[in-house]
Amino acid sequence: MDHRPGLDPSVAEVRRAVRTALDEIEGAVVVALSGGPDSLALALATAFEAPRRGVRAEAVVIDHGLQEGSDAVARRAADAARSFGLEARVVRVEVVPAEGPEADARAARYAGLARAAEEIGADAVLLGHTLDDQAETVLLGLARGSGTASLAGMAPRRRDETGPTWVRPLLGVRRRTTVAACAAESVEPWTDPHNADPTFSRVRVREHVLPVLEAELGPGVAEALARTAEQLREDAEAFQEMIDETIEDIVEHAEAGISISVAALAANPAALRHRIIRYVADSEFGVSLSRTQTLEVARLATDWRGQGPIDLPRCLARRVGARIELVARA
Amino acid sequence: MDHRPGLDPSVAEVRRAVRTALDEIEGAVVVALSGGPDSLALALATAFEAPRRGVRAEAVVIDHGLQEGSDAVARRAADAARSFGLEARVVRVEVVPAEGPEADARAARYAGLARAAEEIGADAVLLGHTLDDQAETVLLGLARGSGTASLAGMAPRRRDETGPTWVRPLLGVRRRTTVAACAAESVEPWTDPHNADPTFSRVRVREHVLPVLEAELGPGVAEALARTAEQLREDAEAFQEMIDETIEDIVEHAEAGISISVAALAANPAALRHRIIRYVADSEFGVSLSRTQTLEVARLATDWRGQGPIDLPRCLARRVGARIELVARA
Repeated sequence: MDHRPGLDPSVAEVRRAVRTALDEIEGAVVVALSGGPDSLALALATAFEAPRRGVRAEAVVIDHGLQEGSDAVARRAADAARSFGLEARVVRVEVVPAEGPEADARAARYAGLARAAEEIGADAVLLGHTLDDQAETVLLGLARGSGTASLAGMAPRRRDETGPTWVRPLLGVRRRTTVAACAAESVEPWTDPHNADPTFSRVRVREHVLPVLEAELGPGVAEALARTAEQLREDAEAFQEMIDETIEDIVEHAEAGISISVAALAANPAALRHRIIRYVADSEFGVSLSRTQTLEVARLATDWRGQGPIDLPRCLARRVGARIELVARA
Repeated sequence: MDHRPGLDPSVAEVRRAVRTALDEIEGAVVVALSGGPDSLALALATAFEAPRRGVRAEAVVIDHGLQEGSDAVARRAADAARSFGLEARVVRVEVVPAEGPEADARAARYAGLARAAEEIGADAVLLGHTLDDQAETVLLGLARGSGTASLAGMAPRRRDETGPTWVRPLLGVRRRTTVAACAAESVEPWTDPHNADPTFSRVRVREHVLPVLEAELGPGVAEALARTAEQLREDAEAFQEMIDETIEDIVEHAEAGISISVAALAANPAALRHRIIRYVADSEFGVSLSRTQTLEVARLATDWRGQGPIDLPRCLARRVGARIELVARA
């Protein structure tokens, strides 16, 4: 498939995206492969591009063991990867019930991929999420309404403290392009029955919400949502950077918790003030404050009228002199 | 309607919202009244609350003169306002074709309201936009995909450089609440035929998009969209504040334009860097740069490889030594 005349534009587009991602990767890379069109197109392009850049690539197929015959599906995906020249392995993971079926499967999958990356000696894992996935993520975040945190979508590159860098080369590529690329390379993707199950909110967004948005507001909606995610991610990163630079100067660790300087909170614009409060509650007590709770705590600094302590999950906030204390609940 | 037992909850909610807004207003206020349920509920609540706070209130009905019988509709709305104790006037405006029918009518309407406010001696104009309007605005902004600028929705308070402060007391109130409030007070709202005309994208959002989102993602979507707008408005204001604080130190006026320090751009996080570039292009040349154009200009600072000048609307950007110049096109 190298020098054939008339390279299919979809294949060219996916390869270009993978090439750009591989430019920042050295040594070895894992391709997360489900067998669906997105990850299959990703694997195809990686099989083509990686050897040309001296990068060793291996496809890793996670078998969640949740569906009858999942082992056969996984084996077929691995065989497909081998058929176009990638090394491939199947990793069986145990899904531990904790936060709900989708989140649990996801946690097991990412842990399995991280483990495989370590065994393979790969610093990076390529994930097949497309522009459509990103648009769906933004719409799901909209329904939560928690600002940049929920609208910033998936990161094109994210490094865990331990473990590999997660890279999403296809966030700018439409899903239909990955389908076309598989067809052009005569590779048959697997269709995950979950992808049509309307009990998943993501499936409803894909099947009903996004098509209605495109019909009513114009065909560029998915791209606009992805562009929005990109910009809001930048915004969120900028605010986090500002917090990282100042947090040590404005918080003090107290006996049963932590305190924040009222003057520092008041001097900052609301966007930063509210993020500092959320950040402190999260890092100290692992608590995600709602907008209403955050505003109430902020008023201890900006609208002080002798309010009493504010009950929050796992902690309470109170004004003590020129500081706001967040302390564990007795 | 003052002391009757069993005040309808919808009436109470609208009054509470108006009361909070009036707390920051002195002297006189204009209520923009179309005769529809939102502005009628706003006028009803203002008629009740304003005298109790020593604020003089007058309803102003704009007659755009665009529809057959618009004068009669305007007169009826003014009569309704007088019937519940507000002063009222009809202002006939001339809609000048320029940017499209919706934008032109809007410009004429706001100019007419500002003029009336000046004549009345009112510093503030109350507008009847509801939470539903805000949610629709966010969805329309999503389709444009230009980040916080398009998602921040309508401001609860905004002061023009000249002219009145525009205040939207009902941004936290659902449209159905204003309908219920009118019904509870036995006032019949006028139904604008434009509100059902699907050639308007806002009407399509109201009739098709928002209901599908609520059906598929849960009934809290409109509230979530409004909350998103509030947070993204904070973010946008924080960034604008940072720009205002630093812009004088990093730009220099050149012969045919303006230049920005490369070091300052590179030292800032991407969110601020990109906003500085957009801000300078807008304030110097009245140009709204696209995301792609903004990123291309930014690369003159962060990824300098001897690129040539970049053609932009009305101007061009080029690297000159340690600065990026934006100069008028010859």
